[in-house]
Formats: sequence, structure tokens, C-alpha cells
Amino acid sequence: MPSKYRNFRNNVPWLILFLEAVFIVLFFFSTGDASSSSISYPVFQDVNHMVIFGFGFFLTFLKRYGFSSTGFNLLIIVLGVQCSVLIEGLLAFLLQSENEDGLKRITKATVSMTAVAISTGAVLGKTNPMQLILMTVVEIMFFRMSRWINNMFLQVPDNISLMHVHLFGAYFSLAVSSRFSEPSPSSKKNASTSKSDLFSMLGTLFLWVFWPSFNSVLVVDNKTKAICNTYFALAVSAVTAFMLSVLTTKDGKFRMTHIHSAVLAGGITVTYTAHSIEYPWIAMILGLLSSVIAVLGSYCLERCLTPALKIHDTSGVHFTFGLPAVLGALAHVVLLVIRDWTNSPRLGYLVMIRIGAFCLTISVALVAGFITGLILNLKLFKTIPVSKYFEDQFYWEFPHLAVGF
Amino acid sequence: MPSKYRNFRNNVPWLILFLEAVFIVLFFFSTGDASSSSISYPVFQDVNHMVIFGFGFFLTFLKRYGFSSTGFNLLIIVLGVQCSVLIEGLLAFLLQSENEDGLKRITKATVSMTAVAISTGAVLGKTNPMQLILMTVVEIMFFRMSRWINNMFLQVPDNISLMHVHLFGAYFSLAVSSRFSEPSPSSKKNASTSKSDLFSMLGTLFLWVFWPSFNSVLVVDNKTKAICNTYFALAVSAVTAFMLSVLTTKDGKFRMTHIHSAVLAGGITVTYTAHSIEYPWIAMILGLLSSVIAVLGSYCLERCLTPALKIHDTSGVHFTFGLPAVLGALAHVVLLVIRDWTNSPRLGYLVMIRIGAFCLTISVALVAGFITGLILNLKLFKTIPVSKYFEDQFYWEFPHLAVGF
Amino acid sequence: MPSKYRNFRNNVPWLILFLEAVFIVLFFFSTGDASSSSISYPVFQDVNHMVIFGFGFFLTFLKRYGFSSTGFNLLIIVLGVQCSVLIEGLLAFLLQSENEDGLKRITKATVSMTAVAISTGAVLGKTNPMQLILMTVVEIMFFRMSRWINNMFLQVPDNISLMHVHLFGAYFSLAVSSRFSEPSPSSKKNASTSKSDLFSMLGTLFLWVFWPSFNSVLVVDNKTKAICNTYFALAVSAVTAFMLSVLTTKDGKFRMTHIHSAVLAGGITVTYTAHSIEYPWIAMILGLLSSVIAVLGSYCLERCLTPALKIHDTSGVHFTFGLPAVLGALAHVVLLVIRDWTNSPRLGYLVMIRIGAFCLTISVALVAGFITGLILNLKLFKTIPVSKYFEDQFYWEFPHLAVGF
Repeated sequence: MPSKYRNFRNNVPWLILFLEAVFIVLFFFSTGDASSSSISYPVFQDVNHMVIFGFGFFLTFLKRYGFSSTGFNLLIIVLGVQCSVLIEGLLAFLLQSENEDGLKRITKATVSMTAVAISTGAVLGKTNPMQLILMTVVEIMFFRMSRWINNMFLQVPDNISLMHVHLFGAYFSLAVSSRFSEPSPSSKKNASTSKSDLFSMLGTLFLWVFWPSFNSVLVVDNKTKAICNTYFALAVSAVTAFMLSVLTTKDGKFRMTHIHSAVLAGGITVTYTAHSIEYPWIAMILGLLSSVIAVLGSYCLERCLTPALKIHDTSGVHFTFGLPAVLGALAHVVLLVIRDWTNSPRLGYLVMIRIGAFCLTISVALVAGFITGLILNLKLFKTIPVSKYFEDQFYWEFPHLAVGF
Repeated sequence: MPSKYRNFRNNVPWLILFLEAVFIVLFFFSTGDASSSSISYPVFQDVNHMVIFGFGFFLTFLKRYGFSSTGFNLLIIVLGVQCSVLIEGLLAFLLQSENEDGLKRITKATVSMTAVAISTGAVLGKTNPMQLILMTVVEIMFFRMSRWINNMFLQVPDNISLMHVHLFGAYFSLAVSSRFSEPSPSSKKNASTSKSDLFSMLGTLFLWVFWPSFNSVLVVDNKTKAICNTYFALAVSAVTAFMLSVLTTKDGKFRMTHIHSAVLAGGITVTYTAHSIEYPWIAMILGLLSSVIAVLGSYCLERCLTPALKIHDTSGVHFTFGLPAVLGALAHVVLLVIRDWTNSPRLGYLVMIRIGAFCLTISVALVAGFITGLILNLKLFKTIPVSKYFEDQFYWEFPHLAVGF
Repeated sequence: MPSKYRNFRNNVPWLILFLEAVFIVLFFFSTGDASSSSISYPVFQDVNHMVIFGFGFFLTFLKRYGFSSTGFNLLIIVLGVQCSVLIEGLLAFLLQSENEDGLKRITKATVSMTAVAISTGAVLGKTNPMQLILMTVVEIMFFRMSRWINNMFLQVPDNISLMHVHLFGAYFSLAVSSRFSEPSPSSKKNASTSKSDLFSMLGTLFLWVFWPSFNSVLVVDNKTKAICNTYFALAVSAVTAFMLSVLTTKDGKFRMTHIHSAVLAGGITVTYTAHSIEYPWIAMILGLLSSVIAVLGSYCLERCLTPALKIHDTSGVHFTFGLPAVLGALAHVVLLVIRDWTNSPRLGYLVMIRIGAFCLTISVALVAGFITGLILNLKLFKTIPVSKYFEDQFYWEFPHLAVGF
């Protein structure tokens, strides 16, 4: 173990330094106007708050992993945002497209980073910081590539393809996670305490309150409609989460993990459609279905899929973000069909394009995740032993150890 | 106890499902324009944050009731907002009045829900979720009725009558709470730990910071004045809370419950008058008086009223919200008299109307609360035994039980 | 000890009452227009949130001092804001200068209070509330005096001199702290637990997210530029903090205190220059340097300066706020020299003026702090014994004592 530590120390800081130096050099050559912005600052602030604070505390449910959950989340988000802003600038330069203003670039980069924040959830406690950093950089690149393909070949507008972020983040991380060993089922560290669950509830409520900002941040017209629809979808999925939790647990009690995942499902499901849904009741039904899929998904996946595929998903990313996002994609297509049923000869073509875009995102995510998972498990990256999973003390100084957690 | 549980499981989810289905069907028939809004989104966000996050954590002071405090708060707020939006739509249809836009409706509904969030405090730990949900629906209806009477017969404008929300919430819940058994005085669960008090402080500071948004959300003119006056009233009541806490405790120390309740008193007292107070010093004096009434109220009520009337008020709703709101009502009338002393022949009439409006709100709250309390204690609703009061484990799965709280 | 308590009780409430009465009387004579404002409410709200909630929880890292950290922070901030608003009004009256609107005054007062919130950190756990209140009032007066001298004799604009707040707060508190006894090195109370560190992380992330608002609140032109530059500086300093923490700790792990202090350093360093930096890479290099200076500063100061000068600095104010602010001052001058190298004959004069302004602020802070420290240690103020340092129970009722912390 001492040699492990020495290696950890030998690698992580130099990797961070190398990345940061590269970023600063590239920023030196990048241009960008920061004098004004088309994004309102309070809305950027909301999204920034969600990603840094909301996701940071959303992931603190493990009893011995609070420092790493909040700390590493901050580290990879700020690295990823810089990386994402640079890639965007490079693409704008290569494609000779219009340059966006500084705040808008940061906002879009922050929205992209949701994918990484989600992915962290599936491998939470099983990766060391070096693996997390590499995963972040690779994921951001693949996500940009997937968006670029969507944009070039399927004419998906940039703002829509950015909203595939939940879908990409969830399936990328499932594929990555399939390459990591499962924790031993008897591990006592892979559990929560009531205090850690309360911290996680704090993060969840934060995300819940700010979700309408997330879904409306890049919407130009119909901003208010996007806000109202997201609110109603979230409201109904919160209500449904409580209902289903009682029905699916053994002695009819509420289960905290159901609440954590299912209350957000509605917001994720209406991501693609919030600005175009005409009536609140449609958003409400989507919220209800998303919560159903999240709670039943958690029930089924834990029983069937996970043992079969041997994919261990620490924070339930598959049913919290993956399935609701798939439902949202379906809803997007169905609503398009209903709206344009009579008056569009190109309906079939449009439907094919949309379905193609979603399938493409999922495929790129799965393939990229699988490759990333293989790379991260190279000996070079000092995979941590299963016995050290979910353990803050492996990474952080604990002078207060004697005091107890 | 097993049969109790089975009953709990048999009822709660179906009640939630029934309500949610009714809401979705009614939303199908309701109309509402969501394309733009007269409410600024950041201000709605603040109020939403207060109700979901602020009140959720404000109520986490009980040592074994953190999950229920934050979780059930979310559940009843989202149910109540939907219910309130529908009632508003129904009334607009029946009275042929102008239809408000979507975001404004949600904002007003969220403001109304403060009444329910306050009421939860008085019966915290003593009601099961089914009773809470019923109380929410009934309270929202009675509060709308009280506002409608105020509006029809006493010409109180809608925005003012909505601000009676603290008054209504406090006295409604006191009346409800008079129908519930008191916890046994030796109960160790009806207490806080330092960690739970810190979580509650977190909620309190959130509410404190956002209170100016609450008091100015529906103000059209003089928004900035409302903000400044609320800020000064809150500041002085926070200062006074610390002063009085030292003077009223036995060995001259600060008591956390005093701070929790009295720092907010100033904001509640100026609710009716924040936009019309000319000079900050008036707001400051009101803040001082409100804090005095809150701390002395807590001192007297615990000694005299509670034992006499046998009303157990878990989070001190009476002195935290009730008494400061009554003081605010008095201040509203006094300031009116001072301002219009010379130049209004109708002064007497106006004063009578205002006093009438406040008395009406309190009377409706007390009567409605008493009736609701009687209904909630019907055998049908499986009142929980006194020994199970203040206990998360009665409602939530605790796989982490062995780890300790 | 009982007599100590009696004295504590005899003094604190009357001091608070006296101050508050004076404030209300003075507000009675002060004028101010609150009908509209040049400050946007959401941005004021962010700064208010930072000072009340962010700093409150930033300081909760001591294991037995959570109540005092958050509670006393609220108390002194609200007292200080009132005091600061009054001083501003008095000066406007004396100097016959233009009167600012109500919300702008409160915002500027809140920004000033950052100095006090920072100063609290250095003497955290070692001062009683009476000393804290006196320190607040004295510090606010001296800070205003320092700004006035800067303004009168060195033509530093008001908005720039207000941003000297970190510099003033840090060096004032170091001088104050030099007059207090050091805690005994074996004291177990001067430590954190993992839960208290997590609460402190919560405050830190809050401050991190809102720092761009702080740096742009008083900027009139180039607001967006100030926001973007601050964001990049914060991002790079967060990344660097993780890197250096691994390199400087004994067994190559992350240390929480490094993260807490160094992630904010970038935001402090660009305070003076955020609105004028042309390219993000400059802000990023400043962020990197500030984080280096914060972590290395913590390393060196703890080994060399503190034992030599016998200054005990509870929350590391010197390296968290002091050194990054000095670096920011240097950067301000260097950037000025680079920009005006060729085209200004008055460059030498301008540089002298700027350096003079920073030196003046530091000097006033040190002298004022030293005097304040001497006064606070008068017998009159019942300095608390070293054995009672860092102890909530000295000031707060702990009915829940038996339950454990």
C-alpha cells in the first residue's frame, strides 16, 4: 500500500498540472468576446449552482465518502468546463462558425458537465481521482463528437443536441462501470447513514428547485412555458415517487433512495419538450410516467439486469437519469407525430431523424464508455482494490479519525 | 402494529393516486396562458426555494424526524400547489374574472402553501402522511374561501389577502393541534441534537435571506421599498432575538429555539406594510417589537397557555408565526390611522374594514382548524399512537439502523 | 465561573440594546430614497446570501463551535450592516455628497461586512460575543476611515476602495489576534470532525458559486467580463488547490483545509482587476498563482511565522484571504504598468498612487487591529479563559448534551 500511495502522489498532481498548463496555453490562443452576453447571469448562476453544489451534495449518500463526493465533483467540473470551452472554441475556429460570447460558452460548458456529474454517480467510490479526471476529459470529447455528428448528419440543432446530456451521461457511465469490479456484497461501506442521507436530500432538493432553470437556460422563445411545464412535471413525479415507494417496499414504508431518484425524473423527461408542450396536463402525465419508470426501474434493475450483466451502479444512474431520459426521447417523438399528423408529408422522415439522433447518442455513449472503461482499468492507472472502495480515508487526511464519523 | 402498517400501506398510495388523477383530469379542462409572465422568474425561484428547501430544513430540528420533515414537506407542497392552481382556475371560471398567466398562478399558489408549511410545524411528528395530505387539501380550500370572503365583502385586494397566509397558517394549525394528544413529557424523541439544530439553522438562514423576496413578490409598485423595509425589520429582529435570549434563559445563555423563531419575526410583521412604510426606522421598530413578542411569547405560552389549553405546538408556530403576524396586523391599522388622521372622513370605516378582515381570517382559521382536527382524528385515518410520535422509523426504511443516528 | 456568567449576562444584552437603540434613533434622522435602485435585486441577494449563509457555514469546521459560528456571524453581520449604512449616511451629510438609494447602501454595507466576516475567522472561538460586537463596530469605522483617506488623498474611486475589503479584514484580524492568548497545543477542541468539515464544505461551495456576483456587484461597465474572469480564476485555483494539496501533505493525500482555503483564492486575487482583464488566460494565471500562494502560505506560515510571532489564526485567514489579496494588489499594479507602458507620462505617478493605496489600507488595518486587540483584552470585557476556547457550551444552552455531538 505505501507504494500505491507513492504512485498516487506521483501521478495525480502532475496530470492535473499538465492539463491545467495545456488549458492556459490554449486559452492564450483562443479568442472570445466577454463584453456582453445573451445569457442572463441569474440563470447561469442557477445552473452553476446545480452542478457544483447540487450534484456535489446529491452524491454524499455514502457514509464514508462525503469529502470525495463533494470535493472530486468540484475538481472535475471545473476541469471539464475549461476543457469544454476550449473544444467549443476550437470547433468554432475549424468550422469557421460564429463565435459565441464568453458567458454563453461557460453556460453551455456547464450544461455539458451535467453528463460528467451523472457519470460520476455510477462509478462513485470505485475510481481514483486520476481515473475520474481522464474519464471527464474523454467523456467531454466524445459527447462533443456525438453532438457534432447529430448536428452535421441529422440536422439536430445545437441547443437540442446539448439536452441529450442526461442520456449520454447515464449510458456512458453504465458502460464504464461494466469494466469495474463489483464491490463485495458484504461491504459495509457501500451504505448510507441517516445523516449522509439527509445531506443527499439537501442536494436533491437543490437540484429539484433549480431544474426549471436547467430546462429553460438555452430556450430562446417560450422560456416561461418551459419553466411552467418543467415545474408541473417535477411536481407530479415527486408525488408519484412517494406513492410508488410505499407500494414497492416490503413493509410499505418510504425508501429514501426512491425519493432521491424519482423526484427528479419528471424534470429529466421533459428536457427535450418543455418549451413545446402546449398544456400542463401533458407535462404532468410525462412526470407521472417518468417517476413510475424510475421506481419500477430501480425495482427491476436491481433484481434482473444488474446480476445478469454484472454492472454495479452506485447511485442508480440507470433508473435516475437513463430511463427517464429514454422516456423523454420517446415522448418527444410521439408528441411530434401527434402534432404533425395531418399537415406534414415529411412526418416519416422527421420521426426517423429524431429516433436516429437518440439512438446515435446512446450508441456513441455505450461504445465510448466501454472503451474508456477498458483504458481506465489499465495497470498504469492503479485501479484501487475492491477492499478500498467507498473510503474517504484512501484519499483524504483524517486527523479527526479518533472522533468518529 | 403489523396491521397498522398494512393499513398505512393500503391507504396512503391510493389517496395520493386518487388526488393526482383528479388533478391531471382537472388540469385537462383548465386553461391558462404560459407564454409570458408578469412575475420575474428569479423572484419566483426565491419563493419556491424558501418553501421547498427553507421550510424543509427549518423543520429538521427533531433528532429522529429529519427524513419526514424534509420529505413530507416536499410531498405536501407539490400536492398543495397543484390543488391551489386548480382552485384559482375554477374560481376564475366561475366568477368570469381575468385569467392569470401560468407562472403567476404557480407563484401565488406557492405563496399560499406557506400556510401549510407553517401548519405542518405545529403538528410535526404527530400526524401520519395521510392526515398531512388531507390537512393540506382542506387548509388550502378554507384559506381560499377566507380570501374570497375578504375580497367580496370587505373589498380587501387579492394581493393583501394572500399575505394573511402566516396568520391563517398559524391559527389553523393551533386549532388542529388542540385535537391531537400531547406527547408524554418524558419522551426523549421530542428533542433536538446539535447536528439537527444545525440543519435547522441552515433552513432558518435560508428563510432569513429570502424573506425580502417573499414580501415583495406580489408588490407591483415600491418593490425596492418593500425589500429594504423587510431587510431592516429582519435585521433588527435578529439582533433583538440574541439580546432577549440571554435575558430570558436561566443561566444567561443563548437558546437555539429562540434564535430560530425570533430572527424571522420581523419579516412576518412587516408583511402587510413593507411596501408602504415611508422610513426604515418604522420597519426597525416593528422588527424589534416582533422579536420581543416572539421571545416573550415563547416564554409565556410554554408556561401558561399550553398547559391550560393542552395545545402542544411542536415547532412553536404560535410565537414564531402567529403572534408576529397579529402584531403586523395591528401595525397595519395603526399606520393607516396615523397616515390618514387628518384628511379622511372615511377613516373609521377603513379601520373597521381592516380589523374586520384580520378577525375574519383568524376566525375562519380557528373554526376550520378545529373541524379539520376533529376529522383527522376519526378512526378511519389511523391516528398514530403517542409512543410512535416524532419517529422517522415509523414511516421510512432504516437499513442503516445499526450505524446509529 | 458563575460570576463570569453573571457578568456575561449583565453586559451583552445591554450592549446590544444600547447599540440597537442608537441605530434606530440615528435612522430616524437619516434620509434615503428607497423607491428605486441602481443595484439589481438578484445580485444584492447573492451577496447577502454569501455573507449570511456562506460565511456562516464556512466557519463551522470546529467540532464544538457550530452554533456560535453560524449564530454570531448572523448577529454581527446585521449589526454591522446597520452601522455601516448609518456611517455612510453621516458621511454623505457631512461631505454634502450625493445620497445613494436604499438598496445600494445596504449592498455596499453588506460588501463591507465581508471584512468583519473574514476577521471573525482569525479569532474564531477565542472571543466572546461582546468582544465580537465591539470589534465589528470598531472595524467598520476604521475601514470606512481607510476608504475615506484613500479617496481624499489618493483619488481612489469609492468602488475600488471598497474592494480592499479582504485585505483590510485579513490584516486587521491578524493584528487583533496577536493580542489574544494562543490555545494550548494539546486542546482537542481546536479540531474538526468529518461532519463539521462537510458543513464547512457546504459553506465553501456556496461562496465559490457566488464569488462572481461579489466581484461584479459594483461594476457598472464590463459586468459580464468581470463575471467570466472571476469564474476562470476560481476554476483554476480550485484545480491547483487539489494539485498542491497532494504535493504538500506527508503521505500524498488531500487535506480538507487546503481545499477550503485555496479554492476561493482565485476569486479574491482578481477582485481589483476582474472587470479590466482583457483575456481569460490572465485571470487563469492569477488564479493559479493565488492558489499556490494560499497552499504554500499555509505550509510556511504554520511552520515559521506563527510560532515566531505567536499569532494564532483559527481559520487560516492570513493565507486564505490575506496573501491572495496582496497578490491581487501586485497584479493590479503590474497589469497597469503593462497596459500603460508606452502611452502614459504619468505612469510612475499612477503606480505610486496605487501602491500607496494598498500600503495605506494594510497599515491602517494593522494599527487599528492592534489597538482593537489591546482594548478587547481589557479586564472589562471578561476575556474567556483559554480552557473555554472553541466551546459552544460556554454560550449556548445544551439540553441535548447527553445525546452526544
